[in-house]
Amino acid sequence: MSDPAARAGAILSIDLAALCANWRVLADRVGPRSQAAAVVKADAYGLGAAHVAPALLAAGCRRFVVATLDEGIALRPLLPGADILILSGPLPGGEADFHAYGLLPVLNSPEQIAGWAAFARSSGERLAAVLHVDTGMSRLGLRLSEVRALAEDRETLSAIDLKLIMSHLACADEVGHPLNRRQLENFNAARASFPDLPGSLAASSGIFLGADWHADWVRPGAALYGVNPLPGRPNPMRQVVRLQGRILQVRDVDAGDTVGYGATHRCTAPTRLAIVAAGYADGLFRSLGNRGCGQLGEIRVPLIGRVSMDLTIFDVGAVPQTLARPGAVIDLIGPANDVDAVAQAAGTIGYEVLTALSPRYCRTYVGEALQ
Amino acid sequence: MSDPAARAGAILSIDLAALCANWRVLADRVGPRSQAAAVVKADAYGLGAAHVAPALLAAGCRRFVVATLDEGIALRPLLPGADILILSGPLPGGEADFHAYGLLPVLNSPEQIAGWAAFARSSGERLAAVLHVDTGMSRLGLRLSEVRALAEDRETLSAIDLKLIMSHLACADEVGHPLNRRQLENFNAARASFPDLPGSLAASSGIFLGADWHADWVRPGAALYGVNPLPGRPNPMRQVVRLQGRILQVRDVDAGDTVGYGATHRCTAPTRLAIVAAGYADGLFRSLGNRGCGQLGEIRVPLIGRVSMDLTIFDVGAVPQTLARPGAVIDLIGPANDVDAVAQAAGTIGYEVLTALSPRYCRTYVGEALQ
Repeated sequence: MSDPAARAGAILSIDLAALCANWRVLADRVGPRSQAAAVVKADAYGLGAAHVAPALLAAGCRRFVVATLDEGIALRPLLPGADILILSGPLPGGEADFHAYGLLPVLNSPEQIAGWAAFARSSGERLAAVLHVDTGMSRLGLRLSEVRALAEDRETLSAIDLKLIMSHLACADEVGHPLNRRQLENFNAARASFPDLPGSLAASSGIFLGADWHADWVRPGAALYGVNPLPGRPNPMRQVVRLQGRILQVRDVDAGDTVGYGATHRCTAPTRLAIVAAGYADGLFRSLGNRGCGQLGEIRVPLIGRVSMDLTIFDVGAVPQTLARPGAVIDLIGPANDVDAVAQAAGTIGYEVLTALSPRYCRTYVGEALQ
Repeated sequence: MSDPAARAGAILSIDLAALCANWRVLADRVGPRSQAAAVVKADAYGLGAAHVAPALLAAGCRRFVVATLDEGIALRPLLPGADILILSGPLPGGEADFHAYGLLPVLNSPEQIAGWAAFARSSGERLAAVLHVDTGMSRLGLRLSEVRALAEDRETLSAIDLKLIMSHLACADEVGHPLNRRQLENFNAARASFPDLPGSLAASSGIFLGADWHADWVRPGAALYGVNPLPGRPNPMRQVVRLQGRILQVRDVDAGDTVGYGATHRCTAPTRLAIVAAGYADGLFRSLGNRGCGQLGEIRVPLIGRVSMDLTIFDVGAVPQTLARPGAVIDLIGPANDVDAVAQAAGTIGYEVLTALSPRYCRTYVGEALQ
């Protein structure tokens, strides 16, 4: 069997040293008053939680956040001694798994609180949990009135050992959005019901809103992975991801030739095309068709025609033939076209570009021992 | 440990009996003059090639098509006696793996042909391969002039045992597109250079262009998985996929409340929202925000606000409270909102909806033994 990277159509390189450096920058920014957890849900935003989470543990992170119970179960043995928060909380009747695996449920609703309290009483222990309050997103979490009612409910609180009160910002990436201040006020109002409980409000972008939003814990996710937490301003984070697609074939085309499905691109002059072994099944969104670009050496190469399931076509007419040849690679995400740039071309955000990264890539981790 | 389906945020059901019935319908449509292969690349369009391919083998399929060498290596032990075609062909120097695993390379360029011939000579055997000709897509494949040159190249042909000549249609889903006829003519011109070689031109939609396009083999993919090969006309295929997202929380909202990231939806009247445990990290494209819908029982429920990474919000104000409750499921893809309908709402095609389906779902296969 040959080398997997040599025979792969596309290679995804993940720089764990850069990722850990990003975590450290954010932890330093909020410390020492506040501490930094790490959000590693959705398989660490597509980058491989089984590699990312242990690297962050080695870098000093002691609190991890995932979305689902199964994500927590998978990470539990890899994160000895660390807290693992499960944002979705228990489904009805699903409390026992949280306890068995030592996972910290985020309780989002009166039903989840009642279920966790009942389970705690039946198990004869006071059980730890995180309280989630909705401060203006209309998504998961208690209403303020429900928080106040809980604070009065001594019976329930005798069964649940609350460790943290948290909320989530809807518009943190828009610095001047009025909802940011209103959510902070609502969060502080909720905290008044639990004055001794540590709090957490900010994720990646929220960290940059200022110290008022830092509370006791921040929960960066996207910024760890290189997504710019400050859209429209210089990116303070290091890039973590590089995606290289291999050229399968280079072909000459004539003026008038059409390219790809639907014949949506028509060549206006003779040129050369490079057919690359990655497509929308690999997470290169179809919306990049006739809009995206790659980078070959120093040269930007336009993505032309529609993206196919397994193939993408670039115009390499401006590239020397010695560079644009079968077996060579084109940066699909790289230093000159980073995650946010690819997202903009695709009409989405860097978060979705990352989580769409495919299991079909050959993945290589660099800097694993360098944190 | 509890039942994985019971604790999962979303459940993907794949009906292998429907899938095999779709293959049979297409095989019958082109038979007996032509035969049907099955395209199972990109993990069988996201549905799990390790389940799909053996089911199709049991249904009588004897020729399978994948995109990459690694896909072929993974399927080889599951498909005894069947041909496995690798569309990308060998990368430079990668020929030995194809031979070692008994995989049939599709040769797309003079370089790949030369590489395969050289490898055959060095191994002392005449080695099987498929010839790919580009007839108007400007993607992979030989030019017509290169096909003619190959037909004269006795030395190369003494090393390569060509089994099939194939091409691929760019606009088969647009019945009246002039490129369909032109590609057929170009294909027949290429075949004239190899008059004894079986041919293959049509994929799912091409099958419905008529018998002229059927040649000796057709290569359905998307239609097997329920995507309509006839956009704008009734879908002749059975649905294969059902995706159900579980409700984590139901919340009341007031007129004026905003919903989700960016506060892009503002409620005009009091209603109830269901927060569902699946988001764009699961392949529910962000482009469905404020455009998609789900189905709860008999009732269509609008997707409101932006899709989050792990969560999606539906307006369930029109649904009885006994139905819209935590733990209940909403059809994200189902009988009333099939793959093509979801794709249309997301601004893409059913193919991309399928290949974006996430590994995070709990997957259940039904009808496995019923082919």
